[in-house]
Amino acid sequence: MYKDFKLGLCQMSVSMSKEENLSKAAELIGSAVSSGCNVVVLPECFNSPYGTKYFADYAEDISNPDSPTLSALKSIAIQHSIYIVGGSIPEKRGDKYFNTSMIFNPSGEIIGVHRKIHLYDMDVPGGIRCFESDVLSPGDQATIVETEYCKFGIGICYDIRFPEYAWTLSRDESVGILLYPGCFNMTTGPKHWELLMRARAVDNVVFVAGCSQARNTEASYVSWGHSIIVDPWGQHESIDEKEGILIKDIKFQELVNVRNSIWNRKHKRFDVYRQ
Amino acid sequence: MYKDFKLGLCQMSVSMSKEENLSKAAELIGSAVSSGCNVVVLPECFNSPYGTKYFADYAEDISNPDSPTLSALKSIAIQHSIYIVGGSIPEKRGDKYFNTSMIFNPSGEIIGVHRKIHLYDMDVPGGIRCFESDVLSPGDQATIVETEYCKFGIGICYDIRFPEYAWTLSRDESVGILLYPGCFNMTTGPKHWELLMRARAVDNVVFVAGCSQARNTEASYVSWGHSIIVDPWGQHESIDEKEGILIKDIKFQELVNVRNSIWNRKHKRFDVYRQ
Repeated sequence: MYKDFKLGLCQMSVSMSKEENLSKAAELIGSAVSSGCNVVVLPECFNSPYGTKYFADYAEDISNPDSPTLSALKSIAIQHSIYIVGGSIPEKRGDKYFNTSMIFNPSGEIIGVHRKIHLYDMDVPGGIRCFESDVLSPGDQATIVETEYCKFGIGICYDIRFPEYAWTLSRDESVGILLYPGCFNMTTGPKHWELLMRARAVDNVVFVAGCSQARNTEASYVSWGHSIIVDPWGQHESIDEKEGILIKDIKFQELVNVRNSIWNRKHKRFDVYRQ
Repeated sequence: MYKDFKLGLCQMSVSMSKEENLSKAAELIGSAVSSGCNVVVLPECFNSPYGTKYFADYAEDISNPDSPTLSALKSIAIQHSIYIVGGSIPEKRGDKYFNTSMIFNPSGEIIGVHRKIHLYDMDVPGGIRCFESDVLSPGDQATIVETEYCKFGIGICYDIRFPEYAWTLSRDESVGILLYPGCFNMTTGPKHWELLMRARAVDNVVFVAGCSQARNTEASYVSWGHSIIVDPWGQHESIDEKEGILIKDIKFQELVNVRNSIWNRKHKRFDVYRQ
């Protein structure tokens, strides 16, 4: 059911130039592959600065196979024969916009599309103010993709705050890892990024990874960084705020061991819970 | 809806003598009251050593108002005119045993009885092995009690591992704090105690407190200690492993502020989640 793999999180700097962002993604993925990664993850909004004022300008129609980000990631996946969880991009679909992740297999085929389900509307006085719902529409599907290593559960950033969604993804035993492209900020990042990633791993006895944009202090929205990989016991490795790649061997014996020790997955009492 | 109060967690050493344990509880609660506490919490299994081999011997029938622990806590509540969340005790009810918390108001009336819902069955090789279900039956009710300060949601120890239960407790806006008498051990304590308490606070934007037994290295089950109070932003205060009292002013303006800033409570997508 599980096959070990090497995971690389590409914590990239994102500039105003989509072309530059796509080259940067290609470059970092190339480095990750040189280090042996079979699966790479990009950050939320890796081809566009994060922010509601940018989404319409950078949005692509991914029903068009020539859309620049789709075709770039497809080529990179084929070139290196790897899985790519393509962070997220602003997507235009009909007259709506979404925050959307495309997932590619080593043949360059799209094996899943996740549209961010929980839109990030937050107003922390003196901290961060953002209303994705001013521009975006929410997705309405949990996204689980099949790969040769295990099934991956996919969420985007704010989706991590919802334990029910993580369980929805990881309930199936064959889901071994939850992958969250993200872009927490300087208010919520230091307080909650690591906490939530670790909590979702321990709640569900699953690997969890969060891949962030690198910090750009000149952006209107400053990312926290600190891309992180958590094992099913809640132990984590992370990097700092600068551009870089976090690489880890995902060894499923660790997951099996913890699931054989702690049975909270089997002890749930849905007869007692309310929604 | 909310009224501020001073909370005291009595992290007590538990010995083999029930009489000694009841005196110790009275003493620590007296100290907490001297410091102005209106609400005090005792640990899981505060009147008995923790362990399946002890439960039957120490169990009480709380349908009998003269049962020693019930009558002791009732007297203490009346004496100091405070709320007591009476940790937990082994309860005998008919031919079944439960891990049970009694909650008293300042008039000494029982305003709630929580029977641990998720029984702690765990087997970590080289770590901890425990099967509560060998002896205990599970409760089947979420426990929310009304007080003059706010509603309290009650869980016991392993109940904290279930985010769905914390939401079940805190879904009602008037629940301001979740109180978990607990007794994590030297395997799971250092890894998960603080993480889970903080996660439940942030997941639900609510105060969370965990009151532990103090560490007794001569017991067959060694408690981690580190009683903790977490605010709705995830910030926490805790104590070390020794006997002591953790006191904090619970100020609901903090809760209101965070609920006005982060709206994950309102953004849940039960249309997407699976059980």
